[in-house]
Amino acid sequence: MAQARNARLAGVLCPVVTPFGADLRPDAARLVRHCRWLLGQGVGLAVFGTNSEANSLSIGEKIGLLEALVEAGLPTERMMPGTGCCAFPDTVEITRTALRLGCAGVLMLPPFYYKNVPDEGLFRSYAEVIDRVGDARLKIYLYHIPPVSQTPISLPLIERLLDAYPGTIAGIKDSSGQWSNTQAMLERFQPRGFDVLAGSETFLPATLRGGGAGCITATGNVNPAAIARLARDWRLADAERQQALLDAVRAAFQQLPMIPALKAAIAHFASDPAWASVRPPLVALDDAGQRMLVQALESLDFDMPGIAS
Amino acid sequence: MAQARNARLAGVLCPVVTPFGADLRPDAARLVRHCRWLLGQGVGLAVFGTNSEANSLSIGEKIGLLEALVEAGLPTERMMPGTGCCAFPDTVEITRTALRLGCAGVLMLPPFYYKNVPDEGLFRSYAEVIDRVGDARLKIYLYHIPPVSQTPISLPLIERLLDAYPGTIAGIKDSSGQWSNTQAMLERFQPRGFDVLAGSETFLPATLRGGGAGCITATGNVNPAAIARLARDWRLADAERQQALLDAVRAAFQQLPMIPALKAAIAHFASDPAWASVRPPLVALDDAGQRMLVQALESLDFDMPGIAS
Repeated sequence: MAQARNARLAGVLCPVVTPFGADLRPDAARLVRHCRWLLGQGVGLAVFGTNSEANSLSIGEKIGLLEALVEAGLPTERMMPGTGCCAFPDTVEITRTALRLGCAGVLMLPPFYYKNVPDEGLFRSYAEVIDRVGDARLKIYLYHIPPVSQTPISLPLIERLLDAYPGTIAGIKDSSGQWSNTQAMLERFQPRGFDVLAGSETFLPATLRGGGAGCITATGNVNPAAIARLARDWRLADAERQQALLDAVRAAFQQLPMIPALKAAIAHFASDPAWASVRPPLVALDDAGQRMLVQALESLDFDMPGIAS
Repeated sequence: MAQARNARLAGVLCPVVTPFGADLRPDAARLVRHCRWLLGQGVGLAVFGTNSEANSLSIGEKIGLLEALVEAGLPTERMMPGTGCCAFPDTVEITRTALRLGCAGVLMLPPFYYKNVPDEGLFRSYAEVIDRVGDARLKIYLYHIPPVSQTPISLPLIERLLDAYPGTIAGIKDSSGQWSNTQAMLERFQPRGFDVLAGSETFLPATLRGGGAGCITATGNVNPAAIARLARDWRLADAERQQALLDAVRAAFQQLPMIPALKAAIAHFASDPAWASVRPPLVALDDAGQRMLVQALESLDFDMPGIAS
């Protein structure tokens, strides 16, 4: 039976970058401010995604940040925290926390250390977590990002999970970059209420045309309003022009390492140099990289209205 | 200045497989028994390696198991626990625990979620951990296993780490499977007291001939005495015959997924079916796989003398 789409986790979501303070500690106050700005621009909060450096945070740090967001009064119905870890006890712990705090869904990486594992093992990984969490409110969005996780979520695996846990497996973020894969998921699983979210705005109109739910995109951190506008306007004649502008902004970031570039842009437009900090193994942009980014963005008349330190 | 080799962490070490009980909890009592047997066969304890399913264990589970080994009176001077995680706070925590308990060294994966990160970022990852642990007793063996971690440790990175932390960077396990890489490390860094350990017994004699320290090998879990014998006899005429026998046993395991096969062999020879259990995303051998393994091992007159449940 198809489940109804959760409109609060559709449209555009942002894998929110995580600010670090002195000593590389997560900076909850800056994160709250950035999340508030993002919500005001019309995008939802996929905190603890790849672009959030989530896998460079301990479980305790993630739980602390999530609690800080909720204590600050941010709407949990717009939150889809990433909870997938290598070890299932960790995945269970942070998923339970997300449910306790009222988050509407979770974005779950498969365990990603062991490579070339069978679908049977990935099925059991998700099943262990679902069974142990044991909560009918749980809504899992699978996270397919083979370029990074090196652990793809195949179509037969999705089918098996949907058959076994139809009320829990709510959708997927497809960061494969392969439109043919997104299309296959839209055709096979979207009719069952399995919400397909593209991994970037590049495939946003095509995903929406195919009945999908929207996208979760890195550049949502810096260009949220324009991407959210395309998610509304994709049927209009103006959509192609909007897409071209979004693609140009995205290209300015893609010429550099994405996460450091996103943070450098926020640091620049918010006049808040602390934002540029990343945890190793990532490395912040050097001066030349920052100049290249700012010049590219200025040539596009790019701005981040309302962003402030 | 070259540091002296730690003979207790040379020769053959075993990435000890981790037994699980009911509900997939780590089984400390069985782990202690297996470690005792391994020590009696002449190999050291590289607990929490890839073959230990270390990345399927939470930090708390690893700390609990390490404490159980020490409480059982096992010799910490023969222990090289794996401590490298994706998030440096986790790596710091388990590394500190290893030092507190008196472990002679640690085997440290680089952070492995983000791919294609620059050497600068990997250098900073190790530097953060070393600086935060802040303990002159710390001896790090780098863990180069690109087929799994997808995060290689390059020769320039080793050189930079050795220059910056000559008293701390103690060696490497090379699981690249590329002899040319092991050879380059032996030539460039072994003279500085950087102990090169091969990733399997396949390259054990060649590594010892090149001045290296030994090997850390999965099959040490099942064939420890014979591998330890080759580490002593590699200069003798008999070494080639010994190597051929080791290679044949290794091949019997390599025809199947290695970790489930190691555990199935222990379950079989110890008459202790509980040993066959693995955590997802791994999957235990099915009946056909078990039969194939046992037949292959019986055809080699293979046995595990003294192993018992």
